[in-house]
Amino acid sequence: MKTGRGRIAPPEGETDGRRRRGAKARAIILDRAMDVASVSGFEGLTVGSLASDLGISKGNITVLFGDKKALQVKTLDAAVEVFSAKVITPALVEPTPLRRLRRLCHGWFDYVEQRVFPGGCLMYAAINEYRARPGVVQDRVNKYREAWKALLARTIRDAQTAGEIRADQDVQQLVFKLTAFQATSNTAALLGDVKYFLLGRTMTKAAIIEAEVANRSGLGVKPPARRK
Amino acid sequence: MKTGRGRIAPPEGETDGRRRRGAKARAIILDRAMDVASVSGFEGLTVGSLASDLGISKGNITVLFGDKKALQVKTLDAAVEVFSAKVITPALVEPTPLRRLRRLCHGWFDYVEQRVFPGGCLMYAAINEYRARPGVVQDRVNKYREAWKALLARTIRDAQTAGEIRADQDVQQLVFKLTAFQATSNTAALLGDVKYFLLGRTMTKAAIIEAEVANRSGLGVKPPARRK
Repeated sequence: MKTGRGRIAPPEGETDGRRRRGAKARAIILDRAMDVASVSGFEGLTVGSLASDLGISKGNITVLFGDKKALQVKTLDAAVEVFSAKVITPALVEPTPLRRLRRLCHGWFDYVEQRVFPGGCLMYAAINEYRARPGVVQDRVNKYREAWKALLARTIRDAQTAGEIRADQDVQQLVFKLTAFQATSNTAALLGDVKYFLLGRTMTKAAIIEAEVANRSGLGVKPPARRK
Repeated sequence: MKTGRGRIAPPEGETDGRRRRGAKARAIILDRAMDVASVSGFEGLTVGSLASDLGISKGNITVLFGDKKALQVKTLDAAVEVFSAKVITPALVEPTPLRRLRRLCHGWFDYVEQRVFPGGCLMYAAINEYRARPGVVQDRVNKYREAWKALLARTIRDAQTAGEIRADQDVQQLVFKLTAFQATSNTAALLGDVKYFLLGRTMTKAAIIEAEVANRSGLGVKPPARRK
């Protein structure tokens, strides 16, 4: 079995040899499955092709994952875990909501630019692939889509409470803008339209600056604190 | 053979019976192929499933379209023709560039809202499906993507020349915004997130108004002509 790209943490503290090997095999299979799904779509993910890619039996994959739908859902879950570790967790340690918002957004661009997955952001890919296909995979995609929108919205509201973002900034409009810029930058990056991708990054930065209390002028610099 | 939804014009003025029947069959097959591709993706399009859906032989489809890649390209071409007839042609008759721009953008939202295709806008779907898959289909997708961006850019520049859109409006930034809002509204509409889709429409309107010479205030009303 080939080793994966190590995006999924290996099992820790597992002393039962068989369970440890099972967890390791799951991580390697998921690692490969994420790459396949990111390029060929989640519907392009088959137990047979994964088995032949990795040189293991189809039976082994079925035992570990169940049927194709279950494999698709688990691959999506794994991709979201990778995304969380790369983008969300580092942003959450930032000391202010505005800095968290900036880090979430710029972290997303870094993650696509670095091709953590060869096909870019798997969430936006899955949103497109399952937009017209109701079922368990679409339900899961929708759950993650809503969670990402909610995280951005909450962070913007927190930044309003903290006095960093204007109280009159419509939260949903800013969330819409940020996610729209991401969706389009994702396809632009992969299609080799680097200019459009970079424009997406610049416009994301500008959209946040525009919403800031201190930057009606769009300069991105806070005025000095007033003293009375 | 079942009849299609009539989105493709039937052949006119063809007197040779065999050629006329061939053209009619092509139209019916393409009509079905566009629906399939719009829901299951262009990769979900197979000669076999089309044949069984329409109750015709695989051989007939192969004679008319060639291999799977050729079928995908011709289905994409047909979808773009439908889009042109529904959205681009009606916009081009508008008397001013600004009105053409508005009509192109609102026409796009109407076209998705009316579900001309069950999976929404096929161009944005194809952009996503082929973003990481180089080949003839991706080349074609890229050609249409660039053409749409170029049409919007040209219309904005014409509106600047006509004094309708501010000369200092960055053309690429406005094109980026409009296409980003479309991409995200497309998936929102199909996922049943009507609120987000309508927000996309509202923000598209606002983005154009913001760029207008006469509307720095965002009111969308031209000041009365000055008389000296």
